[in-house]
Amino acid sequence: MKDAIDLAQKLSTFSDHWSPRTVAQFNACDVMVVKVQGEFVWHKHDDTDDFFLVLKGVLDIEMRDVTVTLRQGQMYIVPKGVEHRPVAREEVHLLLIEPTGTPNTGNAETAAPRKVV
Amino acid sequence: MKDAIDLAQKLSTFSDHWSPRTVAQFNACDVMVVKVQGEFVWHKHDDTDDFFLVLKGVLDIEMRDVTVTLRQGQMYIVPKGVEHRPVAREEVHLLLIEPTGTPNTGNAETAAPRKVV
Repeated sequence: MKDAIDLAQKLSTFSDHWSPRTVAQFNACDVMVVKVQGEFVWHKHDDTDDFFLVLKGVLDIEMRDVTVTLRQGQMYIVPKGVEHRPVAREEVHLLLIEPTGTPNTGNAETAAPRKVV
Repeated sequence: MKDAIDLAQKLSTFSDHWSPRTVAQFNACDVMVVKVQGEFVWHKHDDTDDFFLVLKGVLDIEMRDVTVTLRQGQMYIVPKGVEHRPVAREEVHLLLIEPTGTPNTGNAETAAPRKVV
C-alpha cells in the first residue's frame, strides 16, 4: 500500500447507509468510512471504545444520560460498555476506528459484514 | 468526557511544531493533533503501525523506496518497521493515532513528551 488513502474518494464508491467500508488496517484495527442517515439501533460494545470523527454533516450520539452533537471536524469516543445510538437527520459521513472484527451493532448476529474498499 | 472534541479548536491552543497533543484516548491508543513544518528525523516504530491523517496542508511521507504525498482528507498507515520521514514544506496539521506511549521519534530518549489538551 503505497498510495494516499483519500477518504472522500472512498466514500464516493458507495451510497448505502450504516455499512462501513474498511479503507486501511493498523495495529489490528480497521479504519472505516461510512455513510449514515436516520436512527441506528441502541447498542454497546462491552470490550472496546468506539471512535467517531465527522467528515461531513451533523451527527447526534445519543447516550442514556446525554446527547453529544458532532459537526465536521469533531470527534467523540464512546467508552466501552456505554449504550449509545447514532442519529443523523441528514446524511453524515464518518471515519470510524475499531479493533478488526468489532460488530457495529454490538452483536455479531446483526452486524454489518466487513467490507473493504 | 461528554463534549464533542473539536480538532481545529484543539489545534488553535498551541503553535509549536512536532509536539503532538493528545485530545482523546481509546483502546489504549492516544488520538493526537500536531502541527508540523520542515523535515522530521528518519525513524521507525518496530512494533506499531503509524496512522497519519492530514487535516490541513500537504505532507510528504518519505520512505526509503517511495514518497507518499498526503493532502487534506487523505491518510496513510506507515507499517511497523518501515523507516520514514515526514516532510512539510509549509505548516501541516495532522491527526495521529498511536498506542499510548509510542515515542514519536521511534526512540524514547528523543521523543516529544506526552501532552494532553
